[in-house]
Amino acid sequence: MAARPRGFGAPVATADETADRASIRRANLGVILRRLRDHGPRSRTRLAEETGLPKATISSLMNELSDLGLVREGEVERDSVTVGRPRLSVELDGREICGIGVEINVDYVSSIALDLRGKQVFQRRVATDALKLGPEGTLDAVAALVQDALVDIRDSGVEPVGVMVAVPGHTDALAGISTISANLGWHDVAVTPGLRERLGPQAPPLSIGNDARLSTISEYMAVSSTGVRDMVYVTGDIGVGGGIVMGGREHQGFRGATCEFGHMPLDPDSVPCVCGRRGCWETMIGLGALLTLAADPDDVVRAPWTDRERRLAEIRRRAEAGDVRTLAALRQVAADLGRGVALLVDIVSPELVVLGGYFAYFGDYLLDQVQHTIDERVLHPATGGCRVALSTNRFTAAVRGGAQLALEGVFQDPARVAS
Amino acid sequence: MAARPRGFGAPVATADETADRASIRRANLGVILRRLRDHGPRSRTRLAEETGLPKATISSLMNELSDLGLVREGEVERDSVTVGRPRLSVELDGREICGIGVEINVDYVSSIALDLRGKQVFQRRVATDALKLGPEGTLDAVAALVQDALVDIRDSGVEPVGVMVAVPGHTDALAGISTISANLGWHDVAVTPGLRERLGPQAPPLSIGNDARLSTISEYMAVSSTGVRDMVYVTGDIGVGGGIVMGGREHQGFRGATCEFGHMPLDPDSVPCVCGRRGCWETMIGLGALLTLAADPDDVVRAPWTDRERRLAEIRRRAEAGDVRTLAALRQVAADLGRGVALLVDIVSPELVVLGGYFAYFGDYLLDQVQHTIDERVLHPATGGCRVALSTNRFTAAVRGGAQLALEGVFQDPARVAS
Repeated sequence: MAARPRGFGAPVATADETADRASIRRANLGVILRRLRDHGPRSRTRLAEETGLPKATISSLMNELSDLGLVREGEVERDSVTVGRPRLSVELDGREICGIGVEINVDYVSSIALDLRGKQVFQRRVATDALKLGPEGTLDAVAALVQDALVDIRDSGVEPVGVMVAVPGHTDALAGISTISANLGWHDVAVTPGLRERLGPQAPPLSIGNDARLSTISEYMAVSSTGVRDMVYVTGDIGVGGGIVMGGREHQGFRGATCEFGHMPLDPDSVPCVCGRRGCWETMIGLGALLTLAADPDDVVRAPWTDRERRLAEIRRRAEAGDVRTLAALRQVAADLGRGVALLVDIVSPELVVLGGYFAYFGDYLLDQVQHTIDERVLHPATGGCRVALSTNRFTAAVRGGAQLALEGVFQDPARVAS
Repeated sequence: MAARPRGFGAPVATADETADRASIRRANLGVILRRLRDHGPRSRTRLAEETGLPKATISSLMNELSDLGLVREGEVERDSVTVGRPRLSVELDGREICGIGVEINVDYVSSIALDLRGKQVFQRRVATDALKLGPEGTLDAVAALVQDALVDIRDSGVEPVGVMVAVPGHTDALAGISTISANLGWHDVAVTPGLRERLGPQAPPLSIGNDARLSTISEYMAVSSTGVRDMVYVTGDIGVGGGIVMGGREHQGFRGATCEFGHMPLDPDSVPCVCGRRGCWETMIGLGALLTLAADPDDVVRAPWTDRERRLAEIRRRAEAGDVRTLAALRQVAADLGRGVALLVDIVSPELVVLGGYFAYFGDYLLDQVQHTIDERVLHPATGGCRVALSTNRFTAAVRGGAQLALEGVFQDPARVAS
């Protein structure tokens, strides 16, 4: 028998006494939709068992979700255990709506749209120079990209329900402002108001979020169906960042502060960091550190005009060719990556560490060393035992997280699609 | 208007359809009792407003709680805003029941009992030598202490509702076993079964927990009424440990792993640690490090037979007398403490860091430096801004946490007192 989603002792039990049937029905629509997302297609009978809702209620909710274009009949459920007549399963219907994620970075803006089933229905990446363009020019580029996405998506009969923009640094989500972004050189840039002005009222709701946070959410959604509840995500690009999920919830710091993994002081006597400190983890394992270790200053992989894809491909080519300096550089990064990850594991004790960005790109050179460092350091063999895995999103985690969060409103309150 | 304890979109809303009036009533008893604990005495009218329960329901619940001996009439509520007749407040009644906390440490066992209002009704500390006594001898000492506590408490007409034992290392709470305790040299010691055998059936329910976890809970309960939701607790004794509270919940690692703050590798080329690694934070800021910095090997404060209180008092005396070496040692510990706390703040971004154990004892020598190190390092001045405070529990956090958790069952389900 499946667990019923009600906790004894929770104050919510008082819902009984202040019940509002209409809002409970709306909430239950979300319960059903999220279950189909998180656990896959299943029969009405099974949904009734799992949610504790009467089967008649499930059928009625399902009709409403079907009318909204959010679910459809799926395959016949094949259950090797149950004997009896086969049961029709219900599944998410991805044909009607999608969420749009946008990422603003120093040297590009990109966008991905995902439908309700997570299928990618749009993807584009445009090289930009945020520092040269400044905030207004960059927002012009973002608006043009979103406009293209909207036209393209609507042409194929899909309706975007929201646009979520990932920005590095601290954001004020309520006001839609990028308050401080050291990488972009931004200070109090009104991102969503600026985009609304450019896109007009026909664009769907716009929102904004920190890129590391959106990446973490996206990475967690990719593994949550396996039952993982505690995860640390560490991603490497020029900067090093990430996030923490505990008990299935993304950790948010005080006053919106983000996890600053890259600036952990792992070696106080080491080289200076962009943040003004010395010996930050980022100075040892950021992409800049790898490049410095792997190549001389006049090497093409270190030239400012070489873009990230070409740099990485060239380093991989050299590693695969057995270049001694490249392999030594990767070993050094692996050792320092392992040391910092082990420290995060000491503090957080997650079940899973996910490596993203360029760490995932070079996963075959880094993963074993990091896993080994953690295994070696576990204090209590009976406990802990954290597993390390590579992100399959690599550099698209933030923009995918944006698209997923843009859809989250529908999963929370499916009836809003009607309005 | 106060917030209603019901979240729209939460699956619990289905409670309406599977309602069990009796269990909802029991749950609501807990809602009321916890509100009185967390927010202090208040009138029935105010409780009705805050919980969203009808006033008649509140009165009926209050009668039941009063019959159980858990609440009583309090002062007249003086509300400077409201005009009208004064309202009688209700408050917790501490006269009937208490929870007993016990701590097993290397050189002592101790116990504290707290009544429902948090008032201390029993306290004792017995010097022991766990390594010499072994598990069975230590459990004998614990059982004798608990027996004394039970007699003493029951003599004064109070009924202990539970005993929670704090043990260093990893514990299997369900089985009541100390699975691994490096400090005690224990491996799979059946603590609660062993105590039950010694104490017999007339002792209240026995349970077990990790000492750092219980300390963290106790420290959090001391500050939660101020609205703090995210806290990091760091405590220093011979070992260095602590815990994390996020979103008002104590963080638990994968498979019960605890936060191993003391073994963060802050200086990999430094001195060896008891855990077998090098450069762990504990080797820099544990009490042993302070003693080594502050005194020669033949100094009385470093003698093995000098107990903790005498060591600390002597070092304090020297610091107050302006002894150069002692002051330099405290400055060094303050610097390394600040560095590690700053790292924890980088990762967790809590609102508050609480320093416990000997860090609190020497708070006047350590606090400013730690706060200064954090202030200096905040990356985004608009965010973060973590505050550092000293524990008022000092070395009693674990045993107080045990007593508080022993009472938690009553706060979750007050009706159990009747059975």
